[in-house]
Amino acid sequence: MIRHPAFTIEPWALRERRLDLGVLAQTESVFALSNGHIGLRGNLDEGEPHAEPGTYLNGFYELRPLPYAEAGYGYPESGQTVVNVTNGKVIRLLVEDEPFDLRYGTLHEHERVLDLRAGTLTRNVHWSSPTGTPVRIRSTRLVSFTHRAVAAIRYEVQAVGRPIRVVVQSELVANEMGTPASGDPRAAAPLRSPLIGEENVTSDDGLAIMVHRTRDSGLRLAAGMWHEIDGPDETLAEGRGGDDVSRMTVATRLSPGQTLRVVKLFSYGWSRRRSRPALHDQVAAALAAARLTGWDGLCADQRRFLDAFWDGADVEVEGDDEVQQAVRFGMFHLLQSSARLEKRPIPAKGLTGSGYDGHTFWDTEIFVMPVLTYTYPRAVADALCWRYATLPLARERARQLGLRGAAFPWRTIHGEECSGYWPAGTAAFHVNADIAHAVTQYVDARQDEEFDRDTGLPLLVETARLWCSLGHHDTTGHYRIDGVTGPDEYTAVADNNLYTNLLTQQNLREAAAAAERHPERAAELGVTQEEIRRWRAGAEAMTVPYDERLGVHQQSDDFTRHAPWDFDATGPDKYPLLLHFPYFDLYRRQVVEQADVVLAMHLRPDAFTPEQKARNFAYYEALTVRDSSLSACTQAVIAAEVGHLELAYRYLGEAALMDLDDLEKNTVDGVHMASLAGAWIALVSGFGGMRAGGGRLRFSPCLPSRITRLGFRLRYRGSRLSVSATREATTYRLLEGPPLTLLHHGEEVELGAEEVTRPNPPRHEPDQEVRQPPGREPRPRS
Amino acid sequence: MIRHPAFTIEPWALRERRLDLGVLAQTESVFALSNGHIGLRGNLDEGEPHAEPGTYLNGFYELRPLPYAEAGYGYPESGQTVVNVTNGKVIRLLVEDEPFDLRYGTLHEHERVLDLRAGTLTRNVHWSSPTGTPVRIRSTRLVSFTHRAVAAIRYEVQAVGRPIRVVVQSELVANEMGTPASGDPRAAAPLRSPLIGEENVTSDDGLAIMVHRTRDSGLRLAAGMWHEIDGPDETLAEGRGGDDVSRMTVATRLSPGQTLRVVKLFSYGWSRRRSRPALHDQVAAALAAARLTGWDGLCADQRRFLDAFWDGADVEVEGDDEVQQAVRFGMFHLLQSSARLEKRPIPAKGLTGSGYDGHTFWDTEIFVMPVLTYTYPRAVADALCWRYATLPLARERARQLGLRGAAFPWRTIHGEECSGYWPAGTAAFHVNADIAHAVTQYVDARQDEEFDRDTGLPLLVETARLWCSLGHHDTTGHYRIDGVTGPDEYTAVADNNLYTNLLTQQNLREAAAAAERHPERAAELGVTQEEIRRWRAGAEAMTVPYDERLGVHQQSDDFTRHAPWDFDATGPDKYPLLLHFPYFDLYRRQVVEQADVVLAMHLRPDAFTPEQKARNFAYYEALTVRDSSLSACTQAVIAAEVGHLELAYRYLGEAALMDLDDLEKNTVDGVHMASLAGAWIALVSGFGGMRAGGGRLRFSPCLPSRITRLGFRLRYRGSRLSVSATREATTYRLLEGPPLTLLHHGEEVELGAEEVTRPNPPRHEPDQEVRQPPGREPRPRS
Repeated sequence: MIRHPAFTIEPWALRERRLDLGVLAQTESVFALSNGHIGLRGNLDEGEPHAEPGTYLNGFYELRPLPYAEAGYGYPESGQTVVNVTNGKVIRLLVEDEPFDLRYGTLHEHERVLDLRAGTLTRNVHWSSPTGTPVRIRSTRLVSFTHRAVAAIRYEVQAVGRPIRVVVQSELVANEMGTPASGDPRAAAPLRSPLIGEENVTSDDGLAIMVHRTRDSGLRLAAGMWHEIDGPDETLAEGRGGDDVSRMTVATRLSPGQTLRVVKLFSYGWSRRRSRPALHDQVAAALAAARLTGWDGLCADQRRFLDAFWDGADVEVEGDDEVQQAVRFGMFHLLQSSARLEKRPIPAKGLTGSGYDGHTFWDTEIFVMPVLTYTYPRAVADALCWRYATLPLARERARQLGLRGAAFPWRTIHGEECSGYWPAGTAAFHVNADIAHAVTQYVDARQDEEFDRDTGLPLLVETARLWCSLGHHDTTGHYRIDGVTGPDEYTAVADNNLYTNLLTQQNLREAAAAAERHPERAAELGVTQEEIRRWRAGAEAMTVPYDERLGVHQQSDDFTRHAPWDFDATGPDKYPLLLHFPYFDLYRRQVVEQADVVLAMHLRPDAFTPEQKARNFAYYEALTVRDSSLSACTQAVIAAEVGHLELAYRYLGEAALMDLDDLEKNTVDGVHMASLAGAWIALVSGFGGMRAGGGRLRFSPCLPSRITRLGFRLRYRGSRLSVSATREATTYRLLEGPPLTLLHHGEEVELGAEEVTRPNPPRHEPDQEVRQPPGREPRPRS
Repeated sequence: MIRHPAFTIEPWALRERRLDLGVLAQTESVFALSNGHIGLRGNLDEGEPHAEPGTYLNGFYELRPLPYAEAGYGYPESGQTVVNVTNGKVIRLLVEDEPFDLRYGTLHEHERVLDLRAGTLTRNVHWSSPTGTPVRIRSTRLVSFTHRAVAAIRYEVQAVGRPIRVVVQSELVANEMGTPASGDPRAAAPLRSPLIGEENVTSDDGLAIMVHRTRDSGLRLAAGMWHEIDGPDETLAEGRGGDDVSRMTVATRLSPGQTLRVVKLFSYGWSRRRSRPALHDQVAAALAAARLTGWDGLCADQRRFLDAFWDGADVEVEGDDEVQQAVRFGMFHLLQSSARLEKRPIPAKGLTGSGYDGHTFWDTEIFVMPVLTYTYPRAVADALCWRYATLPLARERARQLGLRGAAFPWRTIHGEECSGYWPAGTAAFHVNADIAHAVTQYVDARQDEEFDRDTGLPLLVETARLWCSLGHHDTTGHYRIDGVTGPDEYTAVADNNLYTNLLTQQNLREAAAAAERHPERAAELGVTQEEIRRWRAGAEAMTVPYDERLGVHQQSDDFTRHAPWDFDATGPDKYPLLLHFPYFDLYRRQVVEQADVVLAMHLRPDAFTPEQKARNFAYYEALTVRDSSLSACTQAVIAAEVGHLELAYRYLGEAALMDLDDLEKNTVDGVHMASLAGAWIALVSGFGGMRAGGGRLRFSPCLPSRITRLGFRLRYRGSRLSVSATREATTYRLLEGPPLTLLHHGEEVELGAEEVTRPNPPRHEPDQEVRQPPGREPRPRS
């Protein structure tokens, strides 16, 4: 739990009223700033104390060997790990010969505010040194949404009550010491001194540039900084460079009330191909552009950018201020993770920590992209273009595995498979159908013809080809996909995972449809009529495992005949189960780590009757332990659909507060992008009942007792609209763009210039009681 | 292929007529000597050239870390690797200042003979040094069956035609340089300088003792040597010790025809607990005992021991001299691997090489023990007593895995699980039922009441308990064992593996019966009537997967609905498949690495009708690629049973010649004990149709066209008998012990003092044609 009394609940900010070093690690993640290209953890300006110093560049990684006790064909031999690059956010302070360090002296006041509309992290400190000298420090930090390569800090020191001598040291530091490795496989592999210095130019006029390269991955990195100093006349400034450090030192004397202000602009560039001089010049140019804009200009641009974002993305939650704050906090981090991708992936932790080695997973396509598709679609196109760019690697991986088409990696930074445990990596082929799902959803929402033809079609075709070599018609004609792993990581290498089969069915159909939309491009890709026929035949004959006796779908073949997990014998200290039980025991029993059948019901609502949805939900609810942060939002969506609104409300709370309350105890490694997206999903797809597809938006708003009004804004097919639901009625407004037809609780609504209000039908009480495994109930909200 | 024209086919020896350095590595394995405690690879006396120098002590290992790219609960963190211990077989020779090295000079004659009745490896060399000095060398080496801690070499150098000056250096060498590691996971992990010296005493009177310990496993080792020198009067002898070496140097001048003879006795001891002085004294005492017996005495004892063995174990194969030689060669190695175990395991390679890290597997219980049970039963009791001694570790492993009872390791030296890939290690729980099977078989054959009560019962009870926590009655009442791996390593983590279920059924029944035979001991083990009832209930309700449509048993649930392997697209260079295809691809398809259903039909003949056996054999034959050396003999047995005698004959050839012809290209790592046992199994259980159980021996002899007579000797329940079958009839003779009733082709035969001859019924032609995957047919015999 990092929520403590010093955190306030506010609609547009996350404010920490006092410093608690016990949760410093978590606040470094939640206060992280990023634009999708540069990520700065919320480390204190002065560098120490820290839990994990972190500065990341999207796509910049080092290799590390993946060892195996017993080798196997096709095992990846090399992993990729995000690098903590040159730290440009360090500004140290010396007050009357005492270093400013919060662990010493007296802290009278310490406030940090992440402002979701300004896009800044501000800090206000009133501190007295161990010898009793008081000082005020104010800093404001931003990573620019409009200047992709630039971050900036305005740092102010003010003398209080008596004159003081202060020295400010603003630095670029490479190869910082990090924290020791933990035993948890989810934590990052530590990299010691990953960077090799190539250049360090530090001048007295405030400019410094350092160039490094990695040992093994062959990447080069440049970081630069420039300073504007505003202080008393006799202020002294000089630059010095050393091994892995470049330091601008500013010394001055301040009279009481007088302020030294340092504006630090810093910039990054990296490349696999560009030379040292080219990268040097690149960051110098970015700094020049930022100097032209200036500090005030950067702040103004930042706010304008965010105003435009919130205009099409805001969610209003009346009656629950905590969730109101959390969903905006989540949307802000989603934007930060993706705003300036420019054909890079969205990692599971964004650029807020080194968790999961900085890798991207299927979560991006299935949890993050659905939100961005309707709120910041440019990022979805960017991230899918990155997938497209990795097609050659995915084709090569398929070849290596003896398959056709493309086999996208389970986890990666650059595109190569980096999973060291194949049953929960390579075998989780559903990542391919997930990418296809994201393509389909994006194309439906954007009608982006060029993307559809040039990016979407090849992705759909190559994933469909993979499925045609993975699946087969058995001797009874059924189409089977055997020996694969679905979303639930507590069952692996199973036959006919329902989720995989249903998403593959969609993948095959959409590939066929896309090929028919773009026959020329399809022909270039070698698609024949016969191939299209095979895709459709596979889709039509797809096995959908169902237990007739119980009247529920099977997560995979025979799942319902497996032994139930002994929940009564499993104490609360035994979760997450994977840290306390062997895989073989988890795999052979009925226990579900995260929504699997339930996720299939969300993404393929057409494949289930309402009665099946209710029965399936009840059956799997009793088996689902939610050991993954990816589960609560999906459970919220289907709980709401089948009428368990108060249960859905609890799941909403878990998804929304995953990081603010550190529910999984690993927010220290970075925030959970998918769970942050889950707050939006639970609200909009859950209580808003939003589904989309086939050119149609559908809504079935139905609110839980605590939420009195739910409003949200969406972008769809060139329109921008707002939806505002109370318990009684829903109002739809077109804010921009052409009229559209939508469905309100199944009823067609034509939405033009006039807003439309429709009553919500009376809520039906669910037929079926549901329960969770003992001790795994979603936590109640106070 | 190591069979080359210089190898002769002889009934009682393996003779190599000339040296071929190209197959030196393989000959080091096949010429290895061992008594189950000490193993010496067939390295040349002078140490070089060598492929892999090897001296092993059963149970002596070093630890090595088992690394994982992604950690998991319950993964073994530490592996065990057999150590190449102090080499006592090195005897170097200098002839007129030229070292005797076969790579230089001229080799006029070089013969090596492994004598299967003498139990010795002899070598005759006639060599001229590079400067043309001729010399004759004769050496005879043995590892004593009667002096457990002792090996001996008689080394003779003779001057030919002219007087020569010779120097013989007889050594103990620790931390020898080995060969570099290969990429093949089946090869041993290399250990560099695993031994740390503690003592080196070398005296001029021919005695030397060295004590070492391992770095990490905490084991201590002593090696000693003693020499008897017989040469011209002016022979000079002195001892010198150095780092990791102890050297006895003998220098003399030989007239033409004169001989220098050195008898070297060497001895080993190791312990986890005993002190350096205690081990020192132990090997000195063993040397003293061996000196008392003397060289001639050791040789005479060796022959007497073997005579007694062959009296109850010999197999005669008329019409196929190659197989005749091979089966005796195999029996000899089986005896070598097990004669003086004294509660140690029988490794998969015996003590003939470092393959599989020196580990023991389930092969010992299922392939090696059936042979030894009827030919050298003392070794079976020994090896099962070792399993019993590891019960505390197996119980602890079960606890760690969340199971009750005992979970025996898939691979180990000392008892801890050392498998680094759980789907083919931990999940292969059948090893527990395999141990129970060996217990049942041994108790049936020996009626050893004390063993039954004190060793067999606890093993049966604790394995039955494991199954009761691994299996469960599903909601329809069927007893299922889900998520386990059977013998076939190309399907893993599957539900209801037929082999596992049938052997578990037997395990549960036999545990119940044993508990009822020994109620007091059972009560001490906590066995209750209720527990016995549960065992029987599980056995009765055991799931036996069967495909009604095809009329064949399923290897595991839904196996027959999986995609067939594309054999036509799999070239001969793609075998073994596991080196060319990912596990996920192998697991999800119908392709069988080694007999699984077919092995179940051998071990549980009662569970199948003759028609089912024929259909199952045909079905799985078409899917079985035999990428394991454990498969051919089982296929031979069932092929013979269902009437495919010529096919069975080919499989016999593969099993018998696995090492002599190096069919799997890894005989260099040591001989394949299970396959060597397989020659006996194919002959006796295959063409002899022998099955045993319930106090009855059953035979159904039926010979293939090439074998004109098959004779074999067995020990059963205190009797020793011989069986001699021709195409027409079978003659049974009681050689020793009480009369017994046996079954000849289902007909009861009372066997007393008089030999009994019964006609063999006319052979039935099989109904069903069988074929193997293309290119995987067993090789024809010329």
